Amino acid sequence: MQKSILDTILSPADLRALAPEQLPVLAQELRRFIIDIIATKEGHLGASLGVVELTIALHYIFNTPSDNLIWDVGHQAYGHKILTGRKDIFHTNRQKDGISGFPNRGESIYDTFGTGHSSTSISAALGMAMAATLKGEHNRHHIAVIGDASIASGMAFEGLNHAGVTDANLLVILNDNAIGIDPSVGALKRYLTNVKKGTAREENIFEALNFSYFGPVDGHDLNASTEVLQELKKTKGPKFLHVITTKGKGLALAEREQITYHAPGKFDATTGIRVVKDSTPQPPKYQDVFGHTIVELATLNKKIIGITPAMPTGSSLKYMIEAFPDRAFDVGIAEQHAVTLSAGLATEGMVVFCNIYSTFLQRAYDQVIHDVALQNLPVIFCLDRAGLVGQDGGTHQGVYDLAYLNCIPNLIIYAPSDEIALRNIMYTAQQGLDHPIAIRYPRGRGAHINWQLPFKEITIGKGYNVIKGKKTAVITIGSILKNVLAAVNEVNASCSVYDMGFLKPLDKTLLDTIFTTYDHIITVEDGSKIGGLGSSVGDYAFAKAYKGSLTILGIPDTFIEHATVEQQYEEAGISVASLSLLLKNLA
Amino acid sequence: MQKSILDTILSPADLRALAPEQLPVLAQELRRFIIDIIATKEGHLGASLGVVELTIALHYIFNTPSDNLIWDVGHQAYGHKILTGRKDIFHTNRQKDGISGFPNRGESIYDTFGTGHSSTSISAALGMAMAATLKGEHNRHHIAVIGDASIASGMAFEGLNHAGVTDANLLVILNDNAIGIDPSVGALKRYLTNVKKGTAREENIFEALNFSYFGPVDGHDLNASTEVLQELKKTKGPKFLHVITTKGKGLALAEREQITYHAPGKFDATTGIRVVKDSTPQPPKYQDVFGHTIVELATLNKKIIGITPAMPTGSSLKYMIEAFPDRAFDVGIAEQHAVTLSAGLATEGMVVFCNIYSTFLQRAYDQVIHDVALQNLPVIFCLDRAGLVGQDGGTHQGVYDLAYLNCIPNLIIYAPSDEIALRNIMYTAQQGLDHPIAIRYPRGRGAHINWQLPFKEITIGKGYNVIKGKKTAVITIGSILKNVLAAVNEVNASCSVYDMGFLKPLDKTLLDTIFTTYDHIITVEDGSKIGGLGSSVGDYAFAKAYKGSLTILGIPDTFIEHATVEQQYEEAGISVASLSLLLKNLA
Repeated sequence: MQKSILDTILSPADLRALAPEQLPVLAQELRRFIIDIIATKEGHLGASLGVVELTIALHYIFNTPSDNLIWDVGHQAYGHKILTGRKDIFHTNRQKDGISGFPNRGESIYDTFGTGHSSTSISAALGMAMAATLKGEHNRHHIAVIGDASIASGMAFEGLNHAGVTDANLLVILNDNAIGIDPSVGALKRYLTNVKKGTAREENIFEALNFSYFGPVDGHDLNASTEVLQELKKTKGPKFLHVITTKGKGLALAEREQITYHAPGKFDATTGIRVVKDSTPQPPKYQDVFGHTIVELATLNKKIIGITPAMPTGSSLKYMIEAFPDRAFDVGIAEQHAVTLSAGLATEGMVVFCNIYSTFLQRAYDQVIHDVALQNLPVIFCLDRAGLVGQDGGTHQGVYDLAYLNCIPNLIIYAPSDEIALRNIMYTAQQGLDHPIAIRYPRGRGAHINWQLPFKEITIGKGYNVIKGKKTAVITIGSILKNVLAAVNEVNASCSVYDMGFLKPLDKTLLDTIFTTYDHIITVEDGSKIGGLGSSVGDYAFAKAYKGSLTILGIPDTFIEHATVEQQYEEAGISVASLSLLLKNLA
Repeated sequence: MQKSILDTILSPADLRALAPEQLPVLAQELRRFIIDIIATKEGHLGASLGVVELTIALHYIFNTPSDNLIWDVGHQAYGHKILTGRKDIFHTNRQKDGISGFPNRGESIYDTFGTGHSSTSISAALGMAMAATLKGEHNRHHIAVIGDASIASGMAFEGLNHAGVTDANLLVILNDNAIGIDPSVGALKRYLTNVKKGTAREENIFEALNFSYFGPVDGHDLNASTEVLQELKKTKGPKFLHVITTKGKGLALAEREQITYHAPGKFDATTGIRVVKDSTPQPPKYQDVFGHTIVELATLNKKIIGITPAMPTGSSLKYMIEAFPDRAFDVGIAEQHAVTLSAGLATEGMVVFCNIYSTFLQRAYDQVIHDVALQNLPVIFCLDRAGLVGQDGGTHQGVYDLAYLNCIPNLIIYAPSDEIALRNIMYTAQQGLDHPIAIRYPRGRGAHINWQLPFKEITIGKGYNVIKGKKTAVITIGSILKNVLAAVNEVNASCSVYDMGFLKPLDKTLLDTIFTTYDHIITVEDGSKIGGLGSSVGDYAFAKAYKGSLTILGIPDTFIEHATVEQQYEEAGISVASLSLLLKNLA
């Protein structure tokens, strides 16, 4: 069997030795290779298919890695990884000890900047460009490839605004496929549509920011792409290239159903048809409990508003957007805006559920403190993907939220131990609280097939005894309770188990009882060991002169990379097996 | 003596009863009133003088407080406060139990949204506008007044981008005086200059974002201002008004020296000449120790870069900007960009000092985690205004940093106990660390007249014994050490005192000794009691089965409002008097 062109590309140097007419063949092979692997190994599909030609063109024209190439977000970097020496290990994508699903500096010199969260590429590339200028390396190029959803985020604007007054050798490539994970929104998106139609060239917003503007170019046309990149290579200063691509390009179903095929799970490599999963009834995803419950509540309470920054599908707020389009909003990748918009709505008496992934709330930390908590506005934050997130790895772990929220005055912090508790805290919160509340819950499924039970009010600040035992009290918060209960069951441990529910206000009455009843306390949380439940229990234990032992379990002070959630639990010492071992030794 | 017009204005209703020709007289009186009070009571001067006419025009034309008026940042809201019933208490501005220097919802129904940090107004006003629409209150107006420095921040762009696809009754007024606290920077500022010159109307960036654009208008012309506001009142949907003003308007010196007169301290109300302060030699401001030391170091180390987001004067990075204009950069109000730009520079081997006020680093929290710490890039963060900040109050307290940074892996966290330690840690850090470091230090002055001593290397992760005593160990971090030493001295306490310096890595060797030597430990920090030094010492104490007592002192779980720093220390229980009382009772 003849060797494919792709097989001969061990690094971009091999690619640059190809004749131009070989590039379309390579594109076809690369696309097929991605499809074949992702069909069985899973991962982010659509974005990488969309930039196959662009990836080839960039490595063909520019001198990577001396020229710095940064892929914003990084969903779309599979082709880049395969062409830069990682073809043979690409099948380990997103697996423990395999390659990361995102660009990663530790993995390859071609991954010049780790990404995962959006809109960082322009700032990073500008920094590299400025450094190169200072080092006298004036012939190096610095390229940020950024999608139309990501460029609408404030951080990207900050980068453009600074770059526009420098003479940095920066090339910003807008990969405009009119979709992020969900369709792009906002005035800039509307404007970009006008640019594509040709009705808005006169008032080009990027030229106004002092960039030389090139495009729009068909990003699937390798001739056109390499040609314009050649020209850009000769242009000094900040440059902007507008490239039009199709997400999912080359797999008909992926082109048609772009949201589903962003990360489709397993599928047939030829037809694209997704593998039907086991149809046995399963407990719901936490996100769907949120999504369906907010619709139920919004039917009853006309003041309820739903806000998501660019995650209508991932958060399942889409159900409310469908049911109540006037009261549920996707504001784009704009977490800062999402939080302060929620605060503004709350000043007028609206009951706002602001749903943000735990890891992305880091983008709006100041707004939570300054606009919400300081003014004590009762915004209801629903933080999805809290705790360990599995294959997305270090960039996406939702393990800092308990710690970074704990120090904020006025804020209630709650982690439901199952999806029914999530449902009930949503019900409780919308009745009207005196404070803002952060409700954090994990990726994945709950525990109950029949979860849509009648609403029950949850008492704010009250924890519960789950299992009665002696000597040792295990205190948990959130869905990690399931691991604790499984471990207790496994080794038939005689400890007591408590579900605190609330990190703030801390149930001091319950803790007083625990301090006087047990000689040993173990806290378990799927958040940073520093500054979360364990620390709060410890601080209060010292305040009450508790003289027993306290063992704090949670995420250690290190970044947890991609693996399955179960493997990550193991790494953190909070898997069922680790907990069983601990409890066994106690008993 | 005849009553002035200003004396008759008890609320905006009185203002709206005036004849148009009375407005310029009122403007003169209002300006004089502000100057007279601020001349002796101190505060932010230039911004409020610049918007005297605009403030009058807005309350004259719009039906406040039913129409929502939000002042971005809030430096410029003095006229607004005086015209909305707070004239008689305006002299209590920024004092304990007096009115806040910023709009504050708790203070007046006319302060519809608390501000302090920049660029929040568009999001908040849009939220209010959307709520009004849902409530069927279609005739209400929602107005955000935002400066040209603040509108260049990413968060403002996110607000504009969302608003542009709504039909919200939102009016964004750009108060363009070409300066924030320091002169504005960036491509948007250059563009706005072109708009003013008339060369950039065709390609209006705000129209591209789907706003109806009005202006530019002379913001000191009351006729022109009221006229255009009348017209805007009739215009539906998102509207943008570009107003040109002069910061410091009406006080010649303030117009000429806009940076100095942003907050000039005491001055002569007639001439504007600032009151000369006591010329006795004083210890330096921490900011100047940073500013002069980075120049010294940059002279020796060509790889050093300085970055500030819009605080060249406040951080004193201006000294390096003057000395090394190629290597020191003001990137505008763009903390997110500042941090990731620093990360990008660090990937190319630059030694980056990124100076951000502690409270503003909250704006770049995700970037610290995701772009710097996760990639372990050795960026050197210098966090000025850490701890209690005095008169700026709740919005500006730098008391969360120890807690929100503590949970971030890979990060070194250090607080110098005096300005010489600041100087030496800067020296140490630029030699090259294996990790990023956050160095946090307070507003105000250090302790030593002769501080420019030869550099000494600081051992990373090492704490020190400062006073030897018995029974009780007092463990401190940062400049609060001075209060502890003063208290020990005052009551002649027999305790030992330790300066930890590093929150991370925690000096466990030293703590081991302390645990085995003392029955009582007191930790003192000028940061949140939750999640900082006290929590970390407590967690480690439990890990080592320490059976003595631990008392954690620091900022309680509540927002500390404006007052002097000394009063705020008292409120938090970490003043010299509070500490003396505690140590006395121990002894």
